[in-house]
Amino acid sequence: MKIVIIGGVAAGAKAAAKIKRLRPEASVRVFTDDTNVSYSSCGLPYYIQGNFEDYRMLLVRSVEEFYQSGIRVYTQSKVEQIIPDKRKILVNMHGKITPVHYDKLIIATGARPKIPDIYGIDKFKNIFTLRRVEDGINIRNAMKEIKNVTIMGSGYIGMELLEAFVKNDLNVTVLEKNSHIMKVFDPEMSDLIKQKIENSSRNNFEIILNDIAQEIQGNNEGYVSKIITQNGREIPTDMIIICTGVVPNSELARDAGIEIGTTGAIKVNKLMGTSIENIYACGDCAQKTHIVSGRDVWIPLGSTANKEGRCAAMNAGGVYCEFEGVLGSTVSRCLNVTMSMTGLTEIQAQEIGFSPVSVTIEKTDRVAYMPDVGDITLKIIADKVTGLLLGGQ
Amino acid sequence: MKIVIIGGVAAGAKAAAKIKRLRPEASVRVFTDDTNVSYSSCGLPYYIQGNFEDYRMLLVRSVEEFYQSGIRVYTQSKVEQIIPDKRKILVNMHGKITPVHYDKLIIATGARPKIPDIYGIDKFKNIFTLRRVEDGINIRNAMKEIKNVTIMGSGYIGMELLEAFVKNDLNVTVLEKNSHIMKVFDPEMSDLIKQKIENSSRNNFEIILNDIAQEIQGNNEGYVSKIITQNGREIPTDMIIICTGVVPNSELARDAGIEIGTTGAIKVNKLMGTSIENIYACGDCAQKTHIVSGRDVWIPLGSTANKEGRCAAMNAGGVYCEFEGVLGSTVSRCLNVTMSMTGLTEIQAQEIGFSPVSVTIEKTDRVAYMPDVGDITLKIIADKVTGLLLGGQ
Repeated sequence: MKIVIIGGVAAGAKAAAKIKRLRPEASVRVFTDDTNVSYSSCGLPYYIQGNFEDYRMLLVRSVEEFYQSGIRVYTQSKVEQIIPDKRKILVNMHGKITPVHYDKLIIATGARPKIPDIYGIDKFKNIFTLRRVEDGINIRNAMKEIKNVTIMGSGYIGMELLEAFVKNDLNVTVLEKNSHIMKVFDPEMSDLIKQKIENSSRNNFEIILNDIAQEIQGNNEGYVSKIITQNGREIPTDMIIICTGVVPNSELARDAGIEIGTTGAIKVNKLMGTSIENIYACGDCAQKTHIVSGRDVWIPLGSTANKEGRCAAMNAGGVYCEFEGVLGSTVSRCLNVTMSMTGLTEIQAQEIGFSPVSVTIEKTDRVAYMPDVGDITLKIIADKVTGLLLGGQ
Repeated sequence: MKIVIIGGVAAGAKAAAKIKRLRPEASVRVFTDDTNVSYSSCGLPYYIQGNFEDYRMLLVRSVEEFYQSGIRVYTQSKVEQIIPDKRKILVNMHGKITPVHYDKLIIATGARPKIPDIYGIDKFKNIFTLRRVEDGINIRNAMKEIKNVTIMGSGYIGMELLEAFVKNDLNVTVLEKNSHIMKVFDPEMSDLIKQKIENSSRNNFEIILNDIAQEIQGNNEGYVSKIITQNGREIPTDMIIICTGVVPNSELARDAGIEIGTTGAIKVNKLMGTSIENIYACGDCAQKTHIVSGRDVWIPLGSTANKEGRCAAMNAGGVYCEFEGVLGSTVSRCLNVTMSMTGLTEIQAQEIGFSPVSVTIEKTDRVAYMPDVGDITLKIIADKVTGLLLGGQ
């Protein structure tokens, strides 16, 4: 039995390990255009912050360790085409196109940063996205030489990078086009997070809302030097990190005739199967079902990727496994604030057609007499009609 | 509607608050022989440790606050008798026996420390149990004058007091009659806890297993001075804390003809009703059903008491509420070790007739690259036959 897996960060690496354990006799091969495999993207902001020196701490399992388990991993090997009729893929290995046959194919191509269309964004050095290990290494190297950094976008990665740069004594500007940061939260919770962060002991940062870069300018050495915003602000900057979201890498599947969902990610059933037999998809490239709303969503998270990878591998390996869907549960930190959420926001619940009610309490995060007690603000959202618990922040 | 509640620490206080909210028109009265009401027993070891100075931090809600909500609380008022036929109780209020009528009665009399039968245990000063706020105040006052303390028993309270005294630079001896500390854990986990604690940076303590006090001696001023153990050890000691377990205060109910369970605690149904109509029981005086084994158990915990008090109040107030049972989930800390468990131990599972299998893993308690990473040992127990998850430590 020939198992081929495309992609090897979270879902792909997990799928490879699981299927080899289920079917030791199977040939398991992983192809990825990345230089690394099986690593923790989520840890990159902490590597940049300097919490640890060696980026290899981020690697869960090396190519050699996979090899020892009987799994062959091909890095820097881009899959150019899937040909379902012939059960084969075409892999570009160092410039040479090689056909590889499969009995079962697992697509775990992940996602990639979305690059906003801003004049100058592709013209200068020190403009980065953060997705792969190399990105982290490049940012960490570049930040040693500079003073001013601008983060475009204020989602999880943006806020984690805010902490990383602030703690490294850079002057940080966060540029957010919406009127609130962290849009996975309800507006008043976002505002509370912003206010708490701004009341922290650090003051070498500014969060700008309702504005967006219109033009990026550079200096004579070809490095970025300034952002001009739509509202006319000029922000001197020596580095830009683009954290304005991600898009699923679903084109390879789409071009092979695999059905794409309404979210732009690969449509899968509960067994992680795609519209074409013997082809599974999992992780950030795959569409998900929201457990609370029952709707199609695309919430790319490492935790989900691992579960889906495991489930796809089981079904590909002949062991029945259903993946029920996601709640979108996440937790993150920025300076003095830890923020987490699960389920639907009140606004999402409203849009979907629930009749949401909510309660927000402010309390200590443990009994008040314990050492290291902190504050917690907890918002719980429920449906007035059914009594269903919808989400919490 | 007249609601009478006997006891007011966790279950009783919660029941009073809940029923007043459900039935604002009802007369709600709480009688307790304690001097305090609505307090956190669990916090007493931390008060003794000196984590906070004012014992009133332990009080959740004062008598005055209850009064403001329309709930009348009578402290130092011991209920001497329940007369179900006449729907009344007899209360000893400062020496005067007063009859009080009820429509619904909620018994939340809690538990009391078990005192082992040791020669001299009732003869000397500085021998304490720890249950009520006064106990904590007394121990905290006494410890200022002394150097050597012996803790009898190594359950949660014993181990929390070990930390409290060790951090106050006393010489601490823990005397445990069993061959393992913390018997709510499986033996090898208990041994691991002991080993980790003994490897902590503190060395002003000793844990003695397989031994028990045979005689307690005192000095001329009437203070305890020495313990002689069954194995012939002589332990100089200026203070003894008896932490050898608790027993349910079920005698008042038993004497009223209310059925007592096999565990010695008051038998209740899922609605927290006792064998006599209009009488409910909740908290440490009530028997519980173990969710995993389905068996009658008596695991007295503050968290359970709160849930049961709420449930008893709802049913007494005419709102249907089922309490499903307990898992016995607890978490505690001693010096460098945090210890928690839920469900059945492997040994309990074996005794009950499951076919337990277990796996124990040692890992970091968060991803290894994060700051403040620690070690965790996790044991999971499952049933081989059914695949049912039985417990974790």
